[in-house]
Amino acid sequence: MCSNPVLDLNADLGEGVGDDAALMPLISSANIACGFHAGDPSMLRQVCAEAVDAGVRIGAQVSYPDRSGFGRRFMDATRDEVIADVVYQVGALRALAESVGGTVEYVKPHGALYNTIVHHEVQARAVVDAARSVGLPLMCLPGSAARRLADDAGVSVIAEAFADRGYTPAGTLVPRSEPGALLHDSDEIAARVVTLASTGEITAVDGSVVRSDAVSVCLHGDTPGALAHARTVRRALASAGIDVRAR
Amino acid sequence: MCSNPVLDLNADLGEGVGDDAALMPLISSANIACGFHAGDPSMLRQVCAEAVDAGVRIGAQVSYPDRSGFGRRFMDATRDEVIADVVYQVGALRALAESVGGTVEYVKPHGALYNTIVHHEVQARAVVDAARSVGLPLMCLPGSAARRLADDAGVSVIAEAFADRGYTPAGTLVPRSEPGALLHDSDEIAARVVTLASTGEITAVDGSVVRSDAVSVCLHGDTPGALAHARTVRRALASAGIDVRAR
Amino acid sequence: MCSNPVLDLNADLGEGVGDDAALMPLISSANIACGFHAGDPSMLRQVCAEAVDAGVRIGAQVSYPDRSGFGRRFMDATRDEVIADVVYQVGALRALAESVGGTVEYVKPHGALYNTIVHHEVQARAVVDAARSVGLPLMCLPGSAARRLADDAGVSVIAEAFADRGYTPAGTLVPRSEPGALLHDSDEIAARVVTLASTGEITAVDGSVVRSDAVSVCLHGDTPGALAHARTVRRALASAGIDVRAR
Amino acid sequence: MCSNPVLDLNADLGEGVGDDAALMPLISSANIACGFHAGDPSMLRQVCAEAVDAGVRIGAQVSYPDRSGFGRRFMDATRDEVIADVVYQVGALRALAESVGGTVEYVKPHGALYNTIVHHEVQARAVVDAARSVGLPLMCLPGSAARRLADDAGVSVIAEAFADRGYTPAGTLVPRSEPGALLHDSDEIAARVVTLASTGEITAVDGSVVRSDAVSVCLHGDTPGALAHARTVRRALASAGIDVRAR
Repeated sequence: MCSNPVLDLNADLGEGVGDDAALMPLISSANIACGFHAGDPSMLRQVCAEAVDAGVRIGAQVSYPDRSGFGRRFMDATRDEVIADVVYQVGALRALAESVGGTVEYVKPHGALYNTIVHHEVQARAVVDAARSVGLPLMCLPGSAARRLADDAGVSVIAEAFADRGYTPAGTLVPRSEPGALLHDSDEIAARVVTLASTGEITAVDGSVVRSDAVSVCLHGDTPGALAHARTVRRALASAGIDVRAR
Repeated sequence: MCSNPVLDLNADLGEGVGDDAALMPLISSANIACGFHAGDPSMLRQVCAEAVDAGVRIGAQVSYPDRSGFGRRFMDATRDEVIADVVYQVGALRALAESVGGTVEYVKPHGALYNTIVHHEVQARAVVDAARSVGLPLMCLPGSAARRLADDAGVSVIAEAFADRGYTPAGTLVPRSEPGALLHDSDEIAARVVTLASTGEITAVDGSVVRSDAVSVCLHGDTPGALAHARTVRRALASAGIDVRAR
Repeated sequence: MCSNPVLDLNADLGEGVGDDAALMPLISSANIACGFHAGDPSMLRQVCAEAVDAGVRIGAQVSYPDRSGFGRRFMDATRDEVIADVVYQVGALRALAESVGGTVEYVKPHGALYNTIVHHEVQARAVVDAARSVGLPLMCLPGSAARRLADDAGVSVIAEAFADRGYTPAGTLVPRSEPGALLHDSDEIAARVVTLASTGEITAVDGSVVRSDAVSVCLHGDTPGALAHARTVRRALASAGIDVRAR
Repeated sequence: MCSNPVLDLNADLGEGVGDDAALMPLISSANIACGFHAGDPSMLRQVCAEAVDAGVRIGAQVSYPDRSGFGRRFMDATRDEVIADVVYQVGALRALAESVGGTVEYVKPHGALYNTIVHHEVQARAVVDAARSVGLPLMCLPGSAARRLADDAGVSVIAEAFADRGYTPAGTLVPRSEPGALLHDSDEIAARVVTLASTGEITAVDGSVVRSDAVSVCLHGDTPGALAHARTVRRALASAGIDVRAR
């Protein structure tokens, strides 16, 4: 007797954009902002409470301190600055989550910080050090510097894939400035997610097949059609007998 | 056989004003800013590390979110907002402190928030609720609404007195706008602190004697002469055989 | 030969809430946020450019420095602080507006600051002083302290009424906590605006008639049904032969 | 008959570090922070008033929006973001300065933004566009991309040299990580400034002579000995018959 395959679905919440209430029932993990790129304490505490009510795992979505740029701009921060910023944010969200009966179970960098630690050794190491300091796994991209350094340091990783992003044959994301960066068809997106969950494979933009050990898939909530994509993905996983839950 | 009397000396650190390095060896408890009225994560983490090195107890000096006003202006925040702001700040500083081998052991409101919860029932209750949520004692003024509500709620209190502030016969602080609000003579300040630690008594502006159960005395670090006062207090306590340590 | 009656319709833009693009064609004056309660420079500059394109007058919607509370909380700021905050914001928005071929033509306090200067003499005087310093008229409530002090100081005023708020017999707004504070029926709201523009009269909650010299009416854009109300008001004014333009 | 040579001396003020009051009488131009890396409106307005009283020219010291990093970290901002940020800050400070009887007469980028526009074409062009938009000259480094683009665009430049920084034979600053980056001897610093003002020449670290058309020299105020350097420079200029005034 074998159990169903399992996939974690994560999305960004508490950013004051997108439809948090509509996304919550579709996901198993909520990347909740920590106030550096979006959110304020009382709103974030409320989102934590909603995640607790929905039985959704809470992650700390940590960012550069760049509110006006929504955390989307690279900042040339030092190792110590990145460590301190990440630790501060995780601690703040953890206390908010605990105050409503939940807790923070992983760290997910946001925006430019997420992209930077794919290749920037110093900042990647800083994020890994911060995750170790707060005793939490790091959600990040397979193939990234952050993932390699986390493995080296014995920090747990939640490997992640993106439902609506095109992949290169090398397994990296197609840059947003290039064709094929974004998928727009809900059925195609859903089919990819089912295939990934079932076989560990993603079809790249050139038709080649890429292996991925991602256990979590990121759904976007703030783009046109995103909610429709999310619902289609969720239905397709149910039809395929794949359980959606945090892992 | 009886042990020496004990007094805790606390001061505000991590605010980017005053001379943190000079104050640290004089105190047993550091009220470290949390980024809402002063400080940024990497600087605050550094101050936590210095407190750990000096064997000084760390408290979270929580504030209204009012950086431009240094937390010195009343804000008409709701109960939920105050709870969330305090919890957020304590969690952030706690994670920073833990990342350098320390921890946060109490909550001390700063500036206008400190003064507000002397009399404002809703905000006082919110601060007490926040302290309970993070499982820490609250440093506050004897006779304040916050202290009464903390007692009612079973939240521990660290009762505090001010070395260089005048007291009314009712045991409250003389408002800064009135004569006698501030003491300026180091020896007089030191003598008051020794008397308080030995007898639990403070002489009010009218010469009457006020009882106080304060176990901690606040030293200021950012006013002219403050450091001289602090050193004189410390010496006077040593001469009187009073131990300075966190309690 | 006589000209049509004229009414100014104003609304809050650049706050990252509500539907700016849908509101813009319905109004003659845009109260654009200045970054203290909402907005960042590049977004605000874009909104200024859109107002210029639409031929809509730009006002500086100045706020307490309270981003996490969206400027909705009273802050006990000094006269000098309020002056400096208002002047800073107007100057910032003015430069942004000028960089896209527009300019700022009035000052409108936002949220708690708006409400505070209805009665708080010190802050009202500070806002009036700031408006005089930047050489702009002040949009405010008839009957407010701010209006009286502006009149005394020779600072021009744009007297304002609220389309969807109930009025007391004394001509003040019914507090939001009381019945009748908000009107919900588009046709009723539109009828009130037409009556005000035609006769200078508003019907209070008790049925009595209040005189108002308001020349501008505020439309809300961030509440359910607000856009429908705005469209109905606009159509009703057109039917009644009342011109909508800045004044 | 010929007039004395003239040199402008500038320094950073309103940053909450260094000794503004001691620097003010030594300089002819004050680079006043605008709130993005340091300062708040009421404090900045006060500094403007002091500059007006001292007859010191006011410049807007514009920064990336990076308070926690004091504007010292590169941010990968877009052209539109940089334009909007600079315009916003200049407008804000201009209104503050005008409210106390002064005005802003130039733009000087701070910290990482200053260094970035030495070589980063997109951001340099954005700063030049912003300076043109607000109608002010740009204080910047001879040999920088910003200077070249300003010349191309017809934006006036105030070319600047640094009293206490070593120069390469190519006329650029020796990076802070290399030997010779900083000069420490007050007399040597003063002699260099006199030579520059008299002959337009700076001696580089290798002993070669570099030509400079700098008309303003930056004095630092926040480093140990900085005030002593500034006073020695000022005395040396007086002895050499060189007038210190804005130009």
